[in-house]
Amino acid sequence: MSNSSAAPADKPKGVVGSLAHGLNIIMAFSKAHPRMTLSQVSEKTGMDRAGARRYLLTLVHLGFVVQDGRLFQLTPKVLELGYSYLSSVPLTDKAQYYLDRIRDQTGFPVALGVRDELYVVHLASANSDEFNSPGLTIGRRFPIAYASAGRCILAMMEKAEREALLKDIKLEPMSDMSVATISALNKQLQIIRKQGYALVDQEMQTGIRSLAVPVFNARGQIAASFNTFTFSNLVPAAQLISDALPVMQAAAEELQATLI
Amino acid sequence: MSNSSAAPADKPKGVVGSLAHGLNIIMAFSKAHPRMTLSQVSEKTGMDRAGARRYLLTLVHLGFVVQDGRLFQLTPKVLELGYSYLSSVPLTDKAQYYLDRIRDQTGFPVALGVRDELYVVHLASANSDEFNSPGLTIGRRFPIAYASAGRCILAMMEKAEREALLKDIKLEPMSDMSVATISALNKQLQIIRKQGYALVDQEMQTGIRSLAVPVFNARGQIAASFNTFTFSNLVPAAQLISDALPVMQAAAEELQATLI
Repeated sequence: MSNSSAAPADKPKGVVGSLAHGLNIIMAFSKAHPRMTLSQVSEKTGMDRAGARRYLLTLVHLGFVVQDGRLFQLTPKVLELGYSYLSSVPLTDKAQYYLDRIRDQTGFPVALGVRDELYVVHLASANSDEFNSPGLTIGRRFPIAYASAGRCILAMMEKAEREALLKDIKLEPMSDMSVATISALNKQLQIIRKQGYALVDQEMQTGIRSLAVPVFNARGQIAASFNTFTFSNLVPAAQLISDALPVMQAAAEELQATLI
Repeated sequence: MSNSSAAPADKPKGVVGSLAHGLNIIMAFSKAHPRMTLSQVSEKTGMDRAGARRYLLTLVHLGFVVQDGRLFQLTPKVLELGYSYLSSVPLTDKAQYYLDRIRDQTGFPVALGVRDELYVVHLASANSDEFNSPGLTIGRRFPIAYASAGRCILAMMEKAEREALLKDIKLEPMSDMSVATISALNKQLQIIRKQGYALVDQEMQTGIRSLAVPVFNARGQIAASFNTFTFSNLVPAAQLISDALPVMQAAAEELQATLI
């Protein structure tokens, strides 16, 4: 889902290229490729073998990667990098209480999402037994236009910022039901602004329906969103809205009141 | 608590120094310093201003840092680095169900910890309303000797590996009750091996008592631990053990059965 790279196209003067290469190697590991040989790393990152080897051994030296025979894998030290971010965002700590409360009151899984360029990222979540889903993993990224968390943030953004973002979005429909044009997306964003929440029906994945509500900061700017999802064949949209929406909106209002 | 650095002392040939510098800048941000000026970053990392500026601007260019006037802060993209690890560890996905179950059955918060050199790191957690604690944040590191999660792992490790590790541990007592010598620690480790769980009473922090049980892999090697904690003035040790231990041990056994 993620596939972002640490190497944007235009490289301003003074940029340290080797830092991008090292970060790309970390991001090359995934659920599908938790342990890789040097050749695999070289192939996945587009680096030559000598370069990939140098960065891998640097990461081994720094404790972020371990080598076991021909295989390399990440160590838990990598989490420290993400923890630097999580611990610097007071929102995360504060939100957990509300996430747990929403999950307990609705029985649905729920996550807190923030925007990261053209993606939305989960900062925290409360998972539900009923819907034991791997989807609510912290740090996972989803396209901003198709995830309800992202679409909600997009809709609530200031107009100028949204219009600038929309110019960069390349819509890649993820299911038969996905909006496929910017004008169709814009129409959805208008509906979201009008009704105050985002309902995304099987546009990310067939069979999955999700709902997101905005969390604003004290200046009235969109800061994050709460989002939940259900299987569309089990929970009709009307029931998702009647069960989860008031609970999520109440939590969002309370969380907002604590934000500076 | 963490304060580890990405730059070990002996630097083998071929290591890419700039990668360590860049990673150190990411790790310099924290709850106490979520937004920093160039001078602050330079001071915290021990880099000169010109160097710190170059790495900061590289991280801005790569999308891991944003600049707002004189202040720099991390972006959610940093989570992708931690996510690379989390998504490469099947244990995390599998453990969440058991963490939630333990929390629901006991009312106590619970986390899954794994060893990272001389630390234990939380990979996943289920927080409790009653004990709404910031301590169970994913990616947070604790000294292996004093956190129950770490001490349990230390106790259950193969003897040769444990003895090698103990040579590197520098005990820095964290409370009046902390063990202060390796021989006192060794005695605790023996008790843990005998009884099959680790009870750490106010050694990490006065007023906090914690309990950990081991999770072994299919080869019988220690893979992780479940740990919970309570306020020592509210929950006597005997009650913590009678309420939480059987629930945690049952969950650990079931989780083990799913591990390869």
